[in-house]
Amino acid sequence: MNIAIAQSGGPTCAINASLLGVYRQAYKDIRVDAIFGSINGIEGMINDNLINLKSVLKSNIDMELLRQTPSTVLGSCRYKLPDYNEDATTYEKIAAVFEKHMIDVFIYIGGNDSMDTVVKLSGYFAKTGKPYKVLGVPKTIDNDLPITDHTPGFGSAAKYVCTTVQEIIRDSSVYSIDSVTVIEIMGRHAGWLTASTCILHTIGQEAPHLIYLPEAGVTVSQILEDVKRERAKHQAVIIAVSEGIDVSELAESAGVTTAGVDAFGHKFQNGVGKVLERIIAQEFGCKVRSIELNVMQRCSSHICSKTDIDEAEEIGAAGLEAALAGNTGKMMYFKRISNMPYLVRIEMTDAKDCANIEKKFPQEWINGAKNNVTDDAVAYFMPLIQGDVKLITKNGLPLHFDRSGFGVFNS
Amino acid sequence: MNIAIAQSGGPTCAINASLLGVYRQAYKDIRVDAIFGSINGIEGMINDNLINLKSVLKSNIDMELLRQTPSTVLGSCRYKLPDYNEDATTYEKIAAVFEKHMIDVFIYIGGNDSMDTVVKLSGYFAKTGKPYKVLGVPKTIDNDLPITDHTPGFGSAAKYVCTTVQEIIRDSSVYSIDSVTVIEIMGRHAGWLTASTCILHTIGQEAPHLIYLPEAGVTVSQILEDVKRERAKHQAVIIAVSEGIDVSELAESAGVTTAGVDAFGHKFQNGVGKVLERIIAQEFGCKVRSIELNVMQRCSSHICSKTDIDEAEEIGAAGLEAALAGNTGKMMYFKRISNMPYLVRIEMTDAKDCANIEKKFPQEWINGAKNNVTDDAVAYFMPLIQGDVKLITKNGLPLHFDRSGFGVFNS
Repeated sequence: MNIAIAQSGGPTCAINASLLGVYRQAYKDIRVDAIFGSINGIEGMINDNLINLKSVLKSNIDMELLRQTPSTVLGSCRYKLPDYNEDATTYEKIAAVFEKHMIDVFIYIGGNDSMDTVVKLSGYFAKTGKPYKVLGVPKTIDNDLPITDHTPGFGSAAKYVCTTVQEIIRDSSVYSIDSVTVIEIMGRHAGWLTASTCILHTIGQEAPHLIYLPEAGVTVSQILEDVKRERAKHQAVIIAVSEGIDVSELAESAGVTTAGVDAFGHKFQNGVGKVLERIIAQEFGCKVRSIELNVMQRCSSHICSKTDIDEAEEIGAAGLEAALAGNTGKMMYFKRISNMPYLVRIEMTDAKDCANIEKKFPQEWINGAKNNVTDDAVAYFMPLIQGDVKLITKNGLPLHFDRSGFGVFNS
Repeated sequence: MNIAIAQSGGPTCAINASLLGVYRQAYKDIRVDAIFGSINGIEGMINDNLINLKSVLKSNIDMELLRQTPSTVLGSCRYKLPDYNEDATTYEKIAAVFEKHMIDVFIYIGGNDSMDTVVKLSGYFAKTGKPYKVLGVPKTIDNDLPITDHTPGFGSAAKYVCTTVQEIIRDSSVYSIDSVTVIEIMGRHAGWLTASTCILHTIGQEAPHLIYLPEAGVTVSQILEDVKRERAKHQAVIIAVSEGIDVSELAESAGVTTAGVDAFGHKFQNGVGKVLERIIAQEFGCKVRSIELNVMQRCSSHICSKTDIDEAEEIGAAGLEAALAGNTGKMMYFKRISNMPYLVRIEMTDAKDCANIEKKFPQEWINGAKNNVTDDAVAYFMPLIQGDVKLITKNGLPLHFDRSGFGVFNS
């Protein structure tokens, strides 16, 4: 039989390791013949845009390079399937591609939007009596998928964020003037990645002095009180804040607006970093700057977590095994057995229990003052960033997998 | 005799390695007794704010941690000495501190502004018949100091920039839509750091497809022609652009303004990244985004260049030796002997030949189309980013030197 793999959603450092996990497992399995990669997520299955992965992943070096390459080598999409009860046209196109290439198993690596695709496609196949199996493998730097203890990609993002925030702490404290530095960290509506900076407190850093999460519901007056107190203790105050915090509420309460006009007359919304910068500068009149870590949070594979990359590969392999065993409409997930020693088991759940659902940072891990997290959170995060991947380099730089052989990309 | 060391200017990943170089050399030298660190650059010498470095740098672990810690552990300043012929008050205060602590040698680690301090202070001591020696050790991520082949701190910044730009290239090419990504890179008025991204072309990357430097003097019509041509070849076009490019000229020529108004009614100037983003979006109507690498360019010691860190330590040690040999008013510099094998010699020049002077990227290393650099530039940059420093870590993160023992800082 043949299988197909696709990647979807935003880039992570681990999504190619999961692809490799599926690929390696498929290559080893006597039941599997061709291994197809679907270009740009489910779009490749709709448009019959597939490549033969065995023709591009030929050597162990190829596989090692794939493992250490960030972002999706197969390309990604944000495509959402329609309801098949209303419009089955797209599904019929996909089914035709399955049939044409004799594909029996489709593995979809992605976040909660992608699990929606797993639910719908497996549902359609079940309803129409097709034997095809569709199985989801999780990934997202946001760590906001339910059921699973954590998501592949998150550990590497957290390792980058912690490492970089520590360096910014140093950068912020060189001059003999009072300052506040606000670091805005990704995570859509959940504070996981921002909260992970608590690991710095275990290696002798007092900073970040304040950690603000969307789940904490902090108010402007609390923030100003916090900053006042920290300014009395530290010349350079560091704040880690999640992009997911509701800015409009804060801004309104502080009497500032979030709407700016850029140099070209276009309106834009300031993020929470800029808004906090303004609120704090307005109150204290000291030097305040805000820093966004930008896309580097999701693609800095040069400092990825070995734990994350290894697990991403393992859960990919487990996903293929589960699909070959006849499962469909499922998502693989991590169940944590213990923090120390750190042990996880890979299990399986219905994809519908994860599709379109966001897992928030737990209330019980937020401290009473709503400006930090508890030791339980530290114990949760710590294992996820451990270990370094030994990277293959050339001319002093990490080498990435060369996907020009795919032929289907134009860059 | 006693010696004092200070650090000045913007943070780099290598400035503490130079401090260590001076310290280790002084510790080993039988002529040297106390080794003082001056807090916040020359300000510490003015205000008698010194620490005994032997009391805080006690073990080999302390020294290793110092080597791998970014930014200035002694703090920094932007203080510029007045002309001593007009106002000698500050100089008299400094001389009193030299006398009080029996300091004979002062090593100042900094950029071209700091060399101004070396020139003035050594000049004042010569004029007033004081025996004190003042010697400069270069550093700056901008690589814009004259005489020296390159500056400590630059190689690590270049390694970070190249590594991160490669990751952003991957991040930029995941969706099946046409896009242009503009990456704005530091360097004040010189294009060195931006130009260093040419190393990516040696490891199989076609991107950055366009490299724009302030020294090239490119026009809007050329940029638009370049982008049009690259868009025909690549779905995701990547541009590396130096912050030092004169934005107002570009903006005026393209009929856009650089002045924005933030959400709080405050005017701001857009940088070259945002301006190019706008000019390109206006012309082509495709997805365009600009990314600033921000302070991470100067403090990402987790990916520092071993060549850079080793050299920074060596030039610090050489600076102390030169001062002990009786030299004053001088700056140490690197003279490159050959590219391959890469060999440099440390020599000495008058600090006045470097003070307040910026070294631009050479015209002869810019290609005819003004959108890339030549192979000579590649050969120049390549050795500077080589090698990785084996970092001491704890809980999965690089450990930084704990300067709380300094007592003089409040953070």
